[in-house]
Amino acid sequence: MSNYILGIDIGGTTAKLGLFSEEHFPEIIVKRSVKTRPDDGGKYILPDIAEGIKQLFEDEGIDKSQIDGIGVGVPGPVIIGDRPGQTLVNKCVNLGWGVKDVASELSELTGIEKVVVENDANAAALGEIICGSVRDMAEKIGTYRKVTEVLVTIGTGIGGGIVRDGQIIRGVFGCAGEIGHIKIAPQHPLLAKLRAAGADINTFDDYEYFASATGIIRFAREGAKFFESSLRDCENMGAREVFEAAREGDALALEVRDFFYDTFGMGLAAVASTLDPDVFTIGGGVSGEGPLLLGGIRESYRRYAFHASTETEFRLAALGNDAGMIGAAVPFYM
Amino acid sequence: MSNYILGIDIGGTTAKLGLFSEEHFPEIIVKRSVKTRPDDGGKYILPDIAEGIKQLFEDEGIDKSQIDGIGVGVPGPVIIGDRPGQTLVNKCVNLGWGVKDVASELSELTGIEKVVVENDANAAALGEIICGSVRDMAEKIGTYRKVTEVLVTIGTGIGGGIVRDGQIIRGVFGCAGEIGHIKIAPQHPLLAKLRAAGADINTFDDYEYFASATGIIRFAREGAKFFESSLRDCENMGAREVFEAAREGDALALEVRDFFYDTFGMGLAAVASTLDPDVFTIGGGVSGEGPLLLGGIRESYRRYAFHASTETEFRLAALGNDAGMIGAAVPFYM
Repeated sequence: MSNYILGIDIGGTTAKLGLFSEEHFPEIIVKRSVKTRPDDGGKYILPDIAEGIKQLFEDEGIDKSQIDGIGVGVPGPVIIGDRPGQTLVNKCVNLGWGVKDVASELSELTGIEKVVVENDANAAALGEIICGSVRDMAEKIGTYRKVTEVLVTIGTGIGGGIVRDGQIIRGVFGCAGEIGHIKIAPQHPLLAKLRAAGADINTFDDYEYFASATGIIRFAREGAKFFESSLRDCENMGAREVFEAAREGDALALEVRDFFYDTFGMGLAAVASTLDPDVFTIGGGVSGEGPLLLGGIRESYRRYAFHASTETEFRLAALGNDAGMIGAAVPFYM
Repeated sequence: MSNYILGIDIGGTTAKLGLFSEEHFPEIIVKRSVKTRPDDGGKYILPDIAEGIKQLFEDEGIDKSQIDGIGVGVPGPVIIGDRPGQTLVNKCVNLGWGVKDVASELSELTGIEKVVVENDANAAALGEIICGSVRDMAEKIGTYRKVTEVLVTIGTGIGGGIVRDGQIIRGVFGCAGEIGHIKIAPQHPLLAKLRAAGADINTFDDYEYFASATGIIRFAREGAKFFESSLRDCENMGAREVFEAAREGDALALEVRDFFYDTFGMGLAAVASTLDPDVFTIGGGVSGEGPLLLGGIRESYRRYAFHASTETEFRLAALGNDAGMIGAAVPFYM
């Protein structure tokens, strides 16, 4: 009888459950989705997930004794508790959680002893280095100078995860890699142009206010109010539609894309002046734009980075939507 | 016969040599100063230092066989070389050096086998955690959650050194902790006021352009051109004179001090959103202003930091002007 690992990625709307076997990791044998209900302080979330796990075991004919462990990724800071090995979730605003011992609770609910909890971006960063796009760097560099990777996800917000020498850097309050909350003042002319036109936008705010998918949409929408653009008639505008319009030559979309590159690269340069990582791995929805996006970001990064660290490597994340589940499960595979 | 360690702190104008004994570390037995000559690609610097070491040995009646090792701090990035254990200086602009194997060269010049080279701020950060102001934290926290310290020196520029779990974080290009080169746009009203008055200042530049001693002097000087201030007649203005004038109630000095606090705290918040350290240790000339300075910085930091990491600890560096020598020598004491 083979052994299995469960990887769970808890998001604001759904929790994704992935079943892995040790032999074929990181291939996912079966996936499930469980709705996350943040009501009443998020107290239904873990019981709902436990029910989903039970169901999955029944359907697949698996006994819990065959599970080596459950890895859980959460969208919030994770801190080290007072007991050796204990981790605690340190507030997940969009799940309704305060400080919560997710590992112990899920262990109790499922009867599976080993549960580890990690911040979702940190988990994804670990996943990319163990079995994703950074794996070859780790293998090439060997043991005496090891890889520091900063994974950055561009989606609704900007998430960040840091892995150094195979270890996640969590930070004293679980906030290491929370780079989306760096305060910045973009220097791109679009900002002044929009303000002059009367747009309701901030000139100084969180990095993710400007350089996330939400930021791209915000600036495209505001721009379309004041300037001629094909985006004006775009009803369900996403970052994808803005990039699409830019490729078709729409002047506003081109400017918004340029604003995004410029501002995103500026933020990464600040991260590099602190940590000087070997590689930035770019993930999240917007990273679907591919190599062209990577080129735009790298060019802007070089403009703002310290002269001795302009040659930092950039890669696209390889694990896609499954990164959270895979990264969460990695500790039981390593 | 007792054993000794040499700690050398190479700066732009002088190299400081400190002799330590293993028993009384970090007490300095004797100090020497050697002028640094950056001429001709800085080729005289190491021979001059070697000559200073020889002299010191003669005067103190020490044989080189009694030296356990030489630790060298340099004002530039240090990278890991291709040979195990090898470090290389990766350009020291103000010493005239390119990529240079300082350890091997100094070893050859002195006949002392063990020479280790480290970035000066990294060395100082290590010194503070081993035998300075952060020592008690390291001891209290114990082994399973260890200390991450960011040492920040406020002087001519802003230097930074990072130690995590007793190990220096160097970065792939030796640029980790080069936080003085983070690009920022201060949000303090003084900036707009000075620009409106016609002052020749940038609104977006390196962190150290604004928030170093040089920055304090720059903004005080520019301000005194346009606004009434006791600083107008100050001939040899240093950061100390500006803080002094602020304590005496000078309106411009108060505003410059407030600008400094605000901008300095903003930069540290960016660092914390990347690394979320246990403690910021504040050193360098300006840190001589003491606890009041620390209070001003902490207040501003809290304004800009991510909500979950506002309670980061702040300490004043304890090792003062000797920090460089002590920190450089630490590897032979640990």
